Amino acid sequence: MRDEFARIEWLKARFDLDPNHDANNVVVGIGDDAAVVDFGNRPTVVTVDTQVEEVHFRRDLISCRDLGYRALVAAASDVSAMAAMPSASLVALSLSAAVTDDEFRELIEGLAEAARHTGARVVGGNLSQAASLTITSTVFGSPISKPITRAGARPGDGVYVTGTLGSAALGLAIVQAGDREATHDEAFIERWRRPPTHERAARALSSLATSAIDVSDGCLQDLEHICAASNVGATLRADSVPSAPGYRASCEALGLDPVALALTGGEDYELLFTAARSAEAEELGTKIGDIIDGSGVQVLDETGRAVELARTGFRHFS
Amino acid sequence: MRDEFARIEWLKARFDLDPNHDANNVVVGIGDDAAVVDFGNRPTVVTVDTQVEEVHFRRDLISCRDLGYRALVAAASDVSAMAAMPSASLVALSLSAAVTDDEFRELIEGLAEAARHTGARVVGGNLSQAASLTITSTVFGSPISKPITRAGARPGDGVYVTGTLGSAALGLAIVQAGDREATHDEAFIERWRRPPTHERAARALSSLATSAIDVSDGCLQDLEHICAASNVGATLRADSVPSAPGYRASCEALGLDPVALALTGGEDYELLFTAARSAEAEELGTKIGDIIDGSGVQVLDETGRAVELARTGFRHFS
Repeated sequence: MRDEFARIEWLKARFDLDPNHDANNVVVGIGDDAAVVDFGNRPTVVTVDTQVEEVHFRRDLISCRDLGYRALVAAASDVSAMAAMPSASLVALSLSAAVTDDEFRELIEGLAEAARHTGARVVGGNLSQAASLTITSTVFGSPISKPITRAGARPGDGVYVTGTLGSAALGLAIVQAGDREATHDEAFIERWRRPPTHERAARALSSLATSAIDVSDGCLQDLEHICAASNVGATLRADSVPSAPGYRASCEALGLDPVALALTGGEDYELLFTAARSAEAEELGTKIGDIIDGSGVQVLDETGRAVELARTGFRHFS
Repeated sequence: MRDEFARIEWLKARFDLDPNHDANNVVVGIGDDAAVVDFGNRPTVVTVDTQVEEVHFRRDLISCRDLGYRALVAAASDVSAMAAMPSASLVALSLSAAVTDDEFRELIEGLAEAARHTGARVVGGNLSQAASLTITSTVFGSPISKPITRAGARPGDGVYVTGTLGSAALGLAIVQAGDREATHDEAFIERWRRPPTHERAARALSSLATSAIDVSDGCLQDLEHICAASNVGATLRADSVPSAPGYRASCEALGLDPVALALTGGEDYELLFTAARSAEAEELGTKIGDIIDGSGVQVLDETGRAVELARTGFRHFS
């Protein structure tokens, strides 16, 4: 099945026959010049994300199935962060000659699984060759009510984050070290291989958040984006940052600073948002800081003193 | 300006300030987690196309400006072939270290030019690194009335093509040969560097075509796609295929078979469509064949005898 058209026929069958997909909104699916999707009468959220071999992932560290899953979930995460529900996707794959037929199928199975979990049904895409495996996911979504952007945080708002931070970066560090000894290590690896999806959180965000972003480049850097877009500053309490059971011990076993990793490690794909302080906001996320007048983000320790962190946040071209 | 965020700021200014773009449908533009676009209350046409260095282009043969232009126009061509008007786009760029700041700007200028010519305003995208320059364009469009697919050709329909065939493949051959002597050679190169856009044709298609496809992989192969999707066969008259002035002479100077190149050379980005025979269809395109009962495409010479062509049509993984 190395032939482009044979692969497209297989993909068409694979995605069109998936009984878990609600196809009501797909007017024309895979296999024509373009797909046609009915997004209803609301504005549509659109985003694109690219994962490149040797830049975003190493093939010896992750399976093709997990790669496919991660790629689509990471893109869908941007849609969730706008308080929208993923509804459809396009997947452009550039395959290297090293990708076997079985790996190709696994990649597609991972994408199909992510499509089911996020709701971003695959309606089309593109297949091409390349020297490095590259996955570009375009995800569409429908805003639950008004889209929540990065601009809208107000002094006095709390800063909240869903789930825990640092686990994905720790999972990657464990895989890279090739050392899986602590009790919780497999859970961190799993957390890195399989980022969370956010259907419930997106619904809650739409009614309470003043701004939101997904944590892809590290919480600190992503909070800086909110501050810049909202023309405000923020304080961030290092001791409030939520982490998973066993996180600190596993960090220390690898010689990693748990606070720096949680705030500047990438690929959490949790949602960082600001909101008026409320029980609802506390229920959706953990409060980790405050929006203030000014600009930039100050990290404070438990006594309120400023902390300097060694940055590990992922940034291209720097 | 090697920094990702500095580049995004520049892009935002570059695209948002473009006075030639009607931004009425853009609710949230470049710079947030995702863009938000109002496509109105019709179904939306969505397509994605990838151009990879050393697979789809060689950087020594084409400027970054032309690369950007071609990439977006090629993707928009799929929208036109559905009888829809391109309305917005997302551009994911994977840049190699060899791309200079000036080349990056030229790439963006080419994309901006294509966005103006097609109407596919750039509302967002993605920047990443890669070993090879890769441009992935997602284009959205609004159907003029009902989308025209590949399935719908009926026995008795004529087969038509807009513009001329073979010029782009000839232009590439001239560039590769490094030999630009004939009077028309620059025009062929220009035709390869700058594919046509199809606003007028898409409008006409929507009212008269029974099926349509854009000619990207060679006319013969693309007509086979229409036949397969429509469950019909076709005959194609080699002597009816339209070519540009000087085409035959320039082909012969390079030792190329003009008919084979016109029917199997790629990257024309013209529209191939079927329609009941009519003056309107003849006005939009040149009639090059007929839809018949059966399957597959037979190429006939001027006496009606079957012709075997050496295939040069572009096909991945074969």
